[in-house]
Amino acid sequence: MIVAMQESAKEEQIQLVIDRLVSLGFEVHRSTGARQTVLGGVGVPHDFDTREVEMMPGVQEVHRITSPYKLAGRNFRPEGTVVKFTNGIEIGGKKIVVMAGPCSVESKEQLFTVSELIAKAGARVLRGGAFKPRSSPYSFQGLGLDGLKLLREAGDRFKLLVISEVMEISQIELMLPYVDIFQVGARNMQNFNLLREAGKLTTPVMIKRGIAATIEELLLAAEYVMSGGNFDVMLCERGIRTFETATRNTMDVSAIPVVKKLSHLPMIGDPSHGTGRRDMVLPMARAAVAAGADGLIVEVHPDPDHAMSDGAQTLTPPQFTEMMQQVRAVAAAVGRSA
Amino acid sequence: MIVAMQESAKEEQIQLVIDRLVSLGFEVHRSTGARQTVLGGVGVPHDFDTREVEMMPGVQEVHRITSPYKLAGRNFRPEGTVVKFTNGIEIGGKKIVVMAGPCSVESKEQLFTVSELIAKAGARVLRGGAFKPRSSPYSFQGLGLDGLKLLREAGDRFKLLVISEVMEISQIELMLPYVDIFQVGARNMQNFNLLREAGKLTTPVMIKRGIAATIEELLLAAEYVMSGGNFDVMLCERGIRTFETATRNTMDVSAIPVVKKLSHLPMIGDPSHGTGRRDMVLPMARAAVAAGADGLIVEVHPDPDHAMSDGAQTLTPPQFTEMMQQVRAVAAAVGRSA
Amino acid sequence: MIVAMQESAKEEQIQLVIDRLVSLGFEVHRSTGARQTVLGGVGVPHDFDTREVEMMPGVQEVHRITSPYKLAGRNFRPEGTVVKFTNGIEIGGKKIVVMAGPCSVESKEQLFTVSELIAKAGARVLRGGAFKPRSSPYSFQGLGLDGLKLLREAGDRFKLLVISEVMEISQIELMLPYVDIFQVGARNMQNFNLLREAGKLTTPVMIKRGIAATIEELLLAAEYVMSGGNFDVMLCERGIRTFETATRNTMDVSAIPVVKKLSHLPMIGDPSHGTGRRDMVLPMARAAVAAGADGLIVEVHPDPDHAMSDGAQTLTPPQFTEMMQQVRAVAAAVGRSA
Amino acid sequence: MIVAMQESAKEEQIQLVIDRLVSLGFEVHRSTGARQTVLGGVGVPHDFDTREVEMMPGVQEVHRITSPYKLAGRNFRPEGTVVKFTNGIEIGGKKIVVMAGPCSVESKEQLFTVSELIAKAGARVLRGGAFKPRSSPYSFQGLGLDGLKLLREAGDRFKLLVISEVMEISQIELMLPYVDIFQVGARNMQNFNLLREAGKLTTPVMIKRGIAATIEELLLAAEYVMSGGNFDVMLCERGIRTFETATRNTMDVSAIPVVKKLSHLPMIGDPSHGTGRRDMVLPMARAAVAAGADGLIVEVHPDPDHAMSDGAQTLTPPQFTEMMQQVRAVAAAVGRSA
Repeated sequence: MIVAMQESAKEEQIQLVIDRLVSLGFEVHRSTGARQTVLGGVGVPHDFDTREVEMMPGVQEVHRITSPYKLAGRNFRPEGTVVKFTNGIEIGGKKIVVMAGPCSVESKEQLFTVSELIAKAGARVLRGGAFKPRSSPYSFQGLGLDGLKLLREAGDRFKLLVISEVMEISQIELMLPYVDIFQVGARNMQNFNLLREAGKLTTPVMIKRGIAATIEELLLAAEYVMSGGNFDVMLCERGIRTFETATRNTMDVSAIPVVKKLSHLPMIGDPSHGTGRRDMVLPMARAAVAAGADGLIVEVHPDPDHAMSDGAQTLTPPQFTEMMQQVRAVAAAVGRSA
Repeated sequence: MIVAMQESAKEEQIQLVIDRLVSLGFEVHRSTGARQTVLGGVGVPHDFDTREVEMMPGVQEVHRITSPYKLAGRNFRPEGTVVKFTNGIEIGGKKIVVMAGPCSVESKEQLFTVSELIAKAGARVLRGGAFKPRSSPYSFQGLGLDGLKLLREAGDRFKLLVISEVMEISQIELMLPYVDIFQVGARNMQNFNLLREAGKLTTPVMIKRGIAATIEELLLAAEYVMSGGNFDVMLCERGIRTFETATRNTMDVSAIPVVKKLSHLPMIGDPSHGTGRRDMVLPMARAAVAAGADGLIVEVHPDPDHAMSDGAQTLTPPQFTEMMQQVRAVAAAVGRSA
Repeated sequence: MIVAMQESAKEEQIQLVIDRLVSLGFEVHRSTGARQTVLGGVGVPHDFDTREVEMMPGVQEVHRITSPYKLAGRNFRPEGTVVKFTNGIEIGGKKIVVMAGPCSVESKEQLFTVSELIAKAGARVLRGGAFKPRSSPYSFQGLGLDGLKLLREAGDRFKLLVISEVMEISQIELMLPYVDIFQVGARNMQNFNLLREAGKLTTPVMIKRGIAATIEELLLAAEYVMSGGNFDVMLCERGIRTFETATRNTMDVSAIPVVKKLSHLPMIGDPSHGTGRRDMVLPMARAAVAAGADGLIVEVHPDPDHAMSDGAQTLTPPQFTEMMQQVRAVAAAVGRSA
Repeated sequence: MIVAMQESAKEEQIQLVIDRLVSLGFEVHRSTGARQTVLGGVGVPHDFDTREVEMMPGVQEVHRITSPYKLAGRNFRPEGTVVKFTNGIEIGGKKIVVMAGPCSVESKEQLFTVSELIAKAGARVLRGGAFKPRSSPYSFQGLGLDGLKLLREAGDRFKLLVISEVMEISQIELMLPYVDIFQVGARNMQNFNLLREAGKLTTPVMIKRGIAATIEELLLAAEYVMSGGNFDVMLCERGIRTFETATRNTMDVSAIPVVKKLSHLPMIGDPSHGTGRRDMVLPMARAAVAAGADGLIVEVHPDPDHAMSDGAQTLTPPQFTEMMQQVRAVAAAVGRSA
C-alpha cells in the first residue's frame, strides 16, 4: 500500500500515519522526497479499508497496491480453471458450454419438453428456478422441492447437468441432492454468509455479477467462496445498471475478457438477463462467445408468452435452435467449439 | 396500461394483443386512430411485466399507467405517516429524529460511551450492528446476540430507541426482544422473502435504498412490507452508485423530496454511507434536513480510527455534537426542530 | 401522446390539460374510465417536452407514443442504408468495413507507415486526427491543415478513404477537400449547430455516441443531420460512462443490435475508445462484429508507446494484422465478410 | 507517480519501465522489496496518461499521486476566491448570490417582468439564454444579439449582473459588451478550445459540470481557464446522469462540499437543471445552500407553461419569491446571508 502525504504535511502527521500503519500490522517504508513524503506499507491485513488512512490529517492519497484477491487471481492458476463433472462435461475448456431452460420450473410437461429440446440442440446444462420470491406476494413463488426433483429427473433423462439458484443458506441442504451447480444470483453476490457456506461445499458454484458490482467485487465474491476450500467457481456477466433504458440492463461484454485476464475462473455470459429482451439474445450470445466466454446461460420456454416469469427475455424453441447454430459458428471462428 | 401499436401493425396482430391482455385479466379498450391503434388495459394484474406485451409482433410501446404501488403511495395517507413509539418518540412528525451509533457493537464500554454522548447531544435512536458479515472471512463478524443485549441495555439506560440491521429471516426471532426498529439493509432491499417476514411484524421497519435501486423500487419494497400488514415503514436514502468516485456513493438528496411527494412514509437520510467520508457527513446532514428529511442516521464512534468497521465515515464525538447543533439550526430554518 | 390523469384529478384540471394540448397543436381524444381519465394527443409538435404537461396539476404521467425520430427510424428505409463511395467501397452492406489509423496525425513517415500496413491488412478507411484540443494547453494540438493534407495524400496513395473529426463549424470548409467522411465526436453529439451544418453537406458523416447519451439521443442526432438533407449518416458505439473502472468506458455492445433494429443506418463499433485498453481491443472488435456491426474503427500506430495521444488503447501493427484475421473469421461466421 | 510492478516482473521489464519514465521526463526512484518492486516518478509531465505505463509488460498498477490541477487546487488560495464585480457584488464571500431568469430571452416584456421580480425578491444576477440551439431544427433558436442587448438593458435597469451562455468561440466577441459573466455550459465543459479562449478574457466565467463529468474533470476545466490567466472562475453543479429517472438528472449535492474542500473556487448550485422538475427546485435549492453553495442559479419565467424552453423546470414568480425566503432562512442557519 502506498500513502502519499500532502506537500504541506507536518512531521508529526507523518509520524501518526506511520504509527497507525504499524498498529494495523503493516511493515512501513518511508521515502522522503524534495516535495513530499511517500509511505509504503507491506503486508495488507484482511479487510483493510484504505479510507481509514485516507481520512488522517496530512494524507493526500492512499493506494492499495496488492490485489485484494489471491486465489481468484490469474497468477494462482495461470493455465486456467476447468470445472470437471463426472459425466465428462468440462466448463472452462475448449468447448463452450450452453446452459438453458426456463426461468421457473412450472410443470413436468413444461420442463421435459424444454429439456429434450435443448439437449437435442446441444445444451449441456439445464437451468431452472425452484424458488422464485417475487415482487408481489400474490405471485407464483416457484415449485420448491418439487421443482428440484423435476430438474433432477429431467437432467438425468436427457443427460444434462442441473444448475439452480440458491437464495438462502437454509436451501442448500434441500438442494444438495438435486443440483450439479449452485447458482448464486446477482442480488446475493455480496451475501457473505451465503458465500461462506458455498465455500464449504464440493458442488461447483456459479456467481452472477450484481447489477451495481464492479468486476473487482465479483472477483472478491469468488475469493470468498474459494477461501472456504471450494475452488470450482464460475463467474457470470448478466448486465449492469446504467442510464441506458433501451435494454433492461447493459450487458458489459468487456467484463468477459477482463475477467479472463485477471482471473483463471471460467466466465459465462447471460444474454437473457443481460438485455432483458428476447430479440437481443441472439446477437449478444454471439458477442459473448466472440469476446471469449466459456459458456452461456439463456432462458428458453416452450411457450414464452405464457411463462410464469421473465417471458419477455425468454427464447422460443426455434430461436434457441437458431442460437445454437450461430454460437457454434462463432465458437469455431474463435478456435473453440460449442 | 396503454399499448401503442405500430402504424404498420396488422389487424390480426392487434387481435392477438387484445386476446393476450384479456387472458392476463385486463379489461381492454380499443381506440383506432387515423394512423395507429392504441389499446388501454384496465386492472393491471399483480406482478405484470410490461415487457410481456412489448415483445409481441406489431407492438410499438407499452406504458404502465397505474402506479405499481398503492399502500406506499401518498394518496393512501395524504396526511403522512407518523411512526409512534411507546416512549413518545415519533418519526415523520415535526421533529427531526437523529439515529446515531457505531457501525458495529464492539464492547460494552464502546457502546455505553457513545450512547451517553449521543443521547446528551440530542439523538433519540441508537444504531449499531450486531451481525457484520464481512468481505473477508477472517474479519470481525459482529458480537451477535451479545451485541443485541448490549444495544438494549444501552438504549434503556440512556432512553434511546434501538435500531439494528436484520440480514436473514433466521435472525428476526433472535432480535425481536432487543430492537425497536428493524433495519433492512441496502443489499436486502429486494430480498422479498425477508420483506415478507418483516410485513408480519408489528415492530417498525426502516428500509434502505439499494445502491442500484430506483426510487420506485424502494417504494415497491415498502409496498411489500405493508401488504403483509406492517404499516410502520420508514425509508432511507444512503447513496447510489454512479461514475463519480470522489465520494464512495452519490447521495441522491433529491430522493428525499421525491419520496415525500410520492409517498406518505417517513424518509431518513444517511450521510455516513451516502458519502463514505467523515469530512462530508456534516454538510450532507444539513442538506438532507434542508431537503425535507424526517430524520438522519449517522455513524459515531468514541475513537473512529480504531473502529472495527467503516471508521472512515464515522464521526468523532465532537463532530457529532457539532452536527447536532448545525442540524438544529437548519431544522429551525425549514420550520422543524431536531 | 398519452396523458394519464390522476384518479383524484378534478374536471377543471382535466379541461386545463386539454386546453393546453390544443394550444400546443395537438388533436385531443378523451377517454373517461371508471377510475381515471386518459387523454390521447395526436400530432406531436417539434421539440415538444413531455415535462411541460407532466407538471400540470392533476396529471399523473405523460408518455410520448410516437417516436421522436422519423428519418432515422427503420421504417423510413426498411432495407437499410448503404453509404456508397466513388471508389466502390460501401458501408452498411455485406462487407464489414474497417477504419484504422493513428489517434493523431504526427508526421508523414508515421502516417504513411501505418497507412501502408493497414491497407495491406485489409482496412478500407484511414482515420487520423488533425485537430487535437487537449486537456493541457501545453500539449500537442494536432497538425491542422498539414495533417489533413497528409491524410489525403496517404489515402490516395494506399487507396483508402479518409475519415477525420470535425470539432467546430469553422473547420468544415477547411476539411472539405481532404476528407471522405466527417466524424462528429462524442463530445459534439449534441452540438446542434454543428449537426445542422453537417446536414447541409453531401459528404457522409459518422456520429459517435456521447459517453452519457442514450441510444435514442444518438438517433436524434442522426435525425438532425438527415433533416438537413444529408442522408449518408453512420453511427458509432464507443463506450458509455458507468461505475465500472476496469475499462475506461463500458462499451455497450448491445447498442449495435438495438440501433440496427430501430434504425436503417450503418453502425460502427469502436473498441479502442470503447475499452481504452489495447489488450481488450481484439476481443471487443470480435464481439462488435458478432453482434452485427457494419464496421469497426480502431487506433493503430507504428509505435504506440511513443504515440502523441491515446497510446494505451492503440494497437501495434502486428496486433492490427491479427485483429483483421480474427475479424474476418467472425464476419464469416455471421454471414458477412471483412 | 507510483508504478507497482507485478511480483513476477522480470528485471528487464523493470528496466524498460524505468527507461520509459525517464524518456517521458520523470525522475525515477526505485524501491525493491522482498516481493515486488515499486517505482516512484517525480515531475509528472503535462497531459501524462497513466495508461501509457499501465500497458507495459510487468506493470501491475500505476497511480498518479500528484493532483492533475494546481491553480484550481485549494492550496493555491487557501482563503478561497471571491469574484468581485464593479457594482460591489461578490461571489464566494459570506453572502449567497442568487442568479435567476428565464431559460431563453423571448421578448423585452418577458425579460423586464421577470427581471424586476427577481431583483425585488433579492436576486443579484440575471440569467438568460440568447443562443438556443435546439434538438429540432424547426424550434426557437434564441434571439441572438437582440437577446444580449435586452439582457444588458434589463440588467442595468434593475441593477443586476448579467450571465449568459457562450456556445462557440465566435460568440465571445459578440457577447463581450453585454455580459458580466460568461457561462460555459455542461456540454462544453470539455471543449478545450472554448476554455482556452475563456482563459484569455478578464470577464468572469462560470463552468457547469458535464452530466458525465467527474468532479476532478470539472476542476481540470477550471485549471484550463486559469492557466490562460483568467482566475475569476466559478463552478456549478447541475446534475449528473445516473440510472434514476424520477428526476431528469441526479443533482450531486455532495459535489458542493467536495469542490469547496479540493478547490478555492466559488461553487454554485443549479436545482433547475439538477432536478428538471419545478416541484423539486425549492427543496434542492435549500439543500445546496445547506451543503455550502456560494450561490444558486434558477430558471424563472412570468408564465412557465408558455416558456419557449425548459418550462417544466422553471419557477413561477411566486415560487421564486418563496424560494428566496427559504434560502435566506437556510443561509442564516449556516452562518451566511442571501
